[in-house]
Amino acid sequence: MILVMSNNATEADIDSVAKQIKEWGHDVSISKGEIQTIIGIIGDKQDLAGKPLHTLAGVEKVLEVSAPYKKASRAFHPEDSTLDIAGVKIGGGHKSIIAGPCSVDSYENLINIAKSVQKAGATMLRGGAFKPRTSPYSFQGKGKEGLEMLAEARRETGLPIVTELMSEKDIDLVYQYTDVIQIGARNMQNFALLKEIGKLGKPVILKNGIASTVKEHLMSVEYVLSGGLQEVIIALRGVRSYETAMRNTLDVALVPYLQKETHLPVIVDPSHSAGKREFVSALGFAGMAAGADGMIIEVHPCPSCALSDGDQALLPEDFDYLMEKIKVLDAWNQKEWKEKFGSKKTSDSFLGGK
Amino acid sequence: MILVMSNNATEADIDSVAKQIKEWGHDVSISKGEIQTIIGIIGDKQDLAGKPLHTLAGVEKVLEVSAPYKKASRAFHPEDSTLDIAGVKIGGGHKSIIAGPCSVDSYENLINIAKSVQKAGATMLRGGAFKPRTSPYSFQGKGKEGLEMLAEARRETGLPIVTELMSEKDIDLVYQYTDVIQIGARNMQNFALLKEIGKLGKPVILKNGIASTVKEHLMSVEYVLSGGLQEVIIALRGVRSYETAMRNTLDVALVPYLQKETHLPVIVDPSHSAGKREFVSALGFAGMAAGADGMIIEVHPCPSCALSDGDQALLPEDFDYLMEKIKVLDAWNQKEWKEKFGSKKTSDSFLGGK
Amino acid sequence: MILVMSNNATEADIDSVAKQIKEWGHDVSISKGEIQTIIGIIGDKQDLAGKPLHTLAGVEKVLEVSAPYKKASRAFHPEDSTLDIAGVKIGGGHKSIIAGPCSVDSYENLINIAKSVQKAGATMLRGGAFKPRTSPYSFQGKGKEGLEMLAEARRETGLPIVTELMSEKDIDLVYQYTDVIQIGARNMQNFALLKEIGKLGKPVILKNGIASTVKEHLMSVEYVLSGGLQEVIIALRGVRSYETAMRNTLDVALVPYLQKETHLPVIVDPSHSAGKREFVSALGFAGMAAGADGMIIEVHPCPSCALSDGDQALLPEDFDYLMEKIKVLDAWNQKEWKEKFGSKKTSDSFLGGK
Amino acid sequence: MILVMSNNATEADIDSVAKQIKEWGHDVSISKGEIQTIIGIIGDKQDLAGKPLHTLAGVEKVLEVSAPYKKASRAFHPEDSTLDIAGVKIGGGHKSIIAGPCSVDSYENLINIAKSVQKAGATMLRGGAFKPRTSPYSFQGKGKEGLEMLAEARRETGLPIVTELMSEKDIDLVYQYTDVIQIGARNMQNFALLKEIGKLGKPVILKNGIASTVKEHLMSVEYVLSGGLQEVIIALRGVRSYETAMRNTLDVALVPYLQKETHLPVIVDPSHSAGKREFVSALGFAGMAAGADGMIIEVHPCPSCALSDGDQALLPEDFDYLMEKIKVLDAWNQKEWKEKFGSKKTSDSFLGGK
Repeated sequence: MILVMSNNATEADIDSVAKQIKEWGHDVSISKGEIQTIIGIIGDKQDLAGKPLHTLAGVEKVLEVSAPYKKASRAFHPEDSTLDIAGVKIGGGHKSIIAGPCSVDSYENLINIAKSVQKAGATMLRGGAFKPRTSPYSFQGKGKEGLEMLAEARRETGLPIVTELMSEKDIDLVYQYTDVIQIGARNMQNFALLKEIGKLGKPVILKNGIASTVKEHLMSVEYVLSGGLQEVIIALRGVRSYETAMRNTLDVALVPYLQKETHLPVIVDPSHSAGKREFVSALGFAGMAAGADGMIIEVHPCPSCALSDGDQALLPEDFDYLMEKIKVLDAWNQKEWKEKFGSKKTSDSFLGGK
Repeated sequence: MILVMSNNATEADIDSVAKQIKEWGHDVSISKGEIQTIIGIIGDKQDLAGKPLHTLAGVEKVLEVSAPYKKASRAFHPEDSTLDIAGVKIGGGHKSIIAGPCSVDSYENLINIAKSVQKAGATMLRGGAFKPRTSPYSFQGKGKEGLEMLAEARRETGLPIVTELMSEKDIDLVYQYTDVIQIGARNMQNFALLKEIGKLGKPVILKNGIASTVKEHLMSVEYVLSGGLQEVIIALRGVRSYETAMRNTLDVALVPYLQKETHLPVIVDPSHSAGKREFVSALGFAGMAAGADGMIIEVHPCPSCALSDGDQALLPEDFDYLMEKIKVLDAWNQKEWKEKFGSKKTSDSFLGGK
Repeated sequence: MILVMSNNATEADIDSVAKQIKEWGHDVSISKGEIQTIIGIIGDKQDLAGKPLHTLAGVEKVLEVSAPYKKASRAFHPEDSTLDIAGVKIGGGHKSIIAGPCSVDSYENLINIAKSVQKAGATMLRGGAFKPRTSPYSFQGKGKEGLEMLAEARRETGLPIVTELMSEKDIDLVYQYTDVIQIGARNMQNFALLKEIGKLGKPVILKNGIASTVKEHLMSVEYVLSGGLQEVIIALRGVRSYETAMRNTLDVALVPYLQKETHLPVIVDPSHSAGKREFVSALGFAGMAAGADGMIIEVHPCPSCALSDGDQALLPEDFDYLMEKIKVLDAWNQKEWKEKFGSKKTSDSFLGGK
Repeated sequence: MILVMSNNATEADIDSVAKQIKEWGHDVSISKGEIQTIIGIIGDKQDLAGKPLHTLAGVEKVLEVSAPYKKASRAFHPEDSTLDIAGVKIGGGHKSIIAGPCSVDSYENLINIAKSVQKAGATMLRGGAFKPRTSPYSFQGKGKEGLEMLAEARRETGLPIVTELMSEKDIDLVYQYTDVIQIGARNMQNFALLKEIGKLGKPVILKNGIASTVKEHLMSVEYVLSGGLQEVIIALRGVRSYETAMRNTLDVALVPYLQKETHLPVIVDPSHSAGKREFVSALGFAGMAAGADGMIIEVHPCPSCALSDGDQALLPEDFDYLMEKIKVLDAWNQKEWKEKFGSKKTSDSFLGGK
């Protein structure tokens, strides 16, 4: 960390700051410029989290120079993390497509969607049993009944299941049924919940917040990792902006950015980002083109009967077509590029990530 | 609600949409324009929350015309709500200043701050025992010990206390100690928590989210109200923007906007918004000048020893001076304006809101 | 357009609003709901631009239902517009890659880059002679000398040239040299300039503003079109957000959105959006994957000697590799998809758009 | 400026960066931390504007430590600047209220408004002759005829006039008539225009851009100052955010922030920020409460006949009431505070700033 002293700071201020930093257990390196003095703090910044550096007399700015997310950072874990979820791999070149309805409504719909997306190449099944809704008067999910339907669909198809956890008091219930716990945008900074799930043994998909920064997203990943769990998938579902043409704004350039910053798999959620069916496929394909390790996407055969977010669900035939495109992209990644350019990092296999 | 049909929509589409709306229990009013047809839905929109209106064939846009927050809305509750918190009134012309440290650190600091702010005119005491921190490595609050110190400070000063609740599992504990439950920005859409506290009997301060809209903020208020509780104070702590000069961006014009939309008291939080001590007083005073029903503000005698957010805490002498200014503003509200313009709505008394 | 009356509006208010609208030459359609009355205005909304609808007594909200950009809108021009720029086609299935240095520095650099990008498949050459710089102390461009170098590079390579116009007083000068006039983000709402270039005969690339909405971008396109010019290329260079990981935020889902709204070609500018070389290729490729009609991209053999924006320029070898990927995507678009799904809209040929 | 080297940077990288900086004429100070090396650049950063520091091998981040706006910065001009505009002072404790219609429509309206606002205490008259409108089909202003009406109103009232300049080609025309040249949000980064007006002798009001940062705003002020002109008034008209309750978002805490950063007068524009009449007074008063040196505000006796922005114009009686409030605030500033606290900086007189 670097402290920039104000140009009125006295020698006494500088000494006193240096002394305080040393008391907190860190060495300093002082550079006196023509106008301003700069104090570099040497050592592990974690220990200084929460210290009131800004308030020390003479300090004008505090600049961070290294990432405050140690366990999530590639700097401390240079190799890709590959997760194995009931035999389905993701990360380290393995790609995985998670598809299914927004909410679980009926078993018939669920199993039909599950079989359809599996045939097209999906490797995990998503479905919501607890739904975070802006309005208290909207459908709130089927709860335990929905979880049971998901478990039944897993038995029938073999697809691992992904479902959202919204409340600390449902942890035991959700834990019992799901393969992957999803934490949604509105709970990205529900730190109490993040701490709890970090102590469990189930892989987690952590979506970014409504308007979180990448750094905050990684800090929330760090909350989970600091509990002990190592299996976190980072999902990008877009953020709020002033633009209303799309539901949210997703910059897929963040995919390679995150893959540089962290060793964990990074996936895109084009459904919640675009928010309108007609733009979801293009965005999902663009996300995979930008190098995402996978995608989580909503599919429903009858969007107007869906109990939530029907507007953004792909029809099964749209999903089939999108998967055809993704497979071509993958084949080309695997073969053509390998021959032509000698790719350093490709998966041995793709769909299913096995 | 209004459905705007696309300009390709057929007569059959229009009939089919109208039929579906009627099946959902609402009458429609159809206006055929030169280019587009518009279908107005008559009746209570609450019942349509979650219905997939966008996906009906031929529908291009769904426009909302009335507020989806019924219990919070002034339309359904034209009179101001006045809350009485252990004898301290807020709302309906009564103004209340809530001051104290960000986190409770030691009882000595707490009681000194409490006495100092009480003397200057504060009417409630704030202090955090559980702290939401972006980093898992930052100080997380003193928990139960902090709550006990707050209760002791209440006994000594008579000031009602305000403290933050972060987790469903701490509800009983916090309930037992506090006069007002504060829900912070990161939990504004922790719907599980909002539902729970709406069932309890304690007044709630609900801050806006990191980057929430006013409408979402009111929908979260509605979650609490829909549980049964009627005593909610709406707090504005600024939102995220691209501007980094301030910690957050607070537009105090939202104070009169919210006071028009809702019957509940509206207060400002200049500490979290400005984020730097030197700008907090000006923003707090501006919020009161814009007509806020009160303010929640951080004060600490030794910012560099504060365990969190020391950068934004006012010194006790700064707070004294700010209160002097606020009192003049209030006296003028009470006397000069009353004589001069005949104010329709002023408080009988101000500080302490009694 | 739709006027939503407030729930206090009287019959007299409603009559008076209806009368005023009729005086302005439009019919109305009135729907009385249980709570609110809605007045639909029938006819061409252009005539009402600037009428103070909000201020009519009893009006609560004014809702727009159709696009205010008539000439840009696909509703009034259902076929794709194909532009022919000195033999290079763009739009209507023809794709075009515009590459070159940010600023023109030396002729040697310029011609080397031009030849290199042409070999890799670029179809137009970009280069700045006038540079908009946030700081008055930064390099401001080579002016006329730069334009002459561009013209010489065109003579040598045959590539049409694209350069930015910043000032009304340079119109004649730039017009004389360039094939395509580029208007940058900071001038997207320099309406005086937009009006002038709409009267000229040169095709225009209009980038979105620093933080413009899609609708404002299209309104600025409309300014140019309303002058008479029909050849406008819409370029997406990302917008400002609170995220600092990237220079700007570009949601490539806006590519299909704009292609639905308008008949004009839509291209992406990954250089200004990502702002860092290492993320530019991924974003450009994602933009093409999302269906963009082309790309404008910065290439420089020695980024650290570039006089502006060296951070975001691709090295020539990076560009070669990106073009290889884009060609595979295109070949697949052309052949595999055509056979497999029967594409309704593909170009007969791609690179060079001929 | 500070260069943070990546943790893979070699000794050779560090040496090579240091050498390059020295070649550009600056000394360096190198601090080697446990993980990263930091290179401080000593001396005037202006000279490095535009140098591609990011691209030097091994550099991870470039951090700015001092303001890049030298002439605007209080660091280099510690005393407040006081402007004298035809006898009306602003800045240095002098406050000035600029009021009038959005657009000039008829002389009768203009002179009535001018007399009314003058009586209430306004010290300058605003009115638009050239209007920047998002739609090419909206009213674009009366041009020269409007300027003549403004000049006539000045003759009749003695109020200095403020009007907007939109185009380089109107500079001579506007210069001839106005006392203060206003540059609006859409032209805040029209650098060609800024350079031209910096060479003239007329005071300038420079509004912030649609979504500019404070730093960019100050850099645009610097463009004007670097031309030679010293008389610039900084106006805050709010910025774009995702919130739609207000037209724009104005954080009045930026008033004291800017007054700390710069020596120039800072005013607020509550009309364009709130955008709705009913919230304009509260925001304007809050801006003055936050310490603004003045206000620019729209007043029109018949908002529904106004040719632009009728929604946001105050009625003359609203303006009278607002001015009463502001006068009380000022009297209190002048007297009560002076006695009570000993104010270091108050104006000798207020309204009219004389």
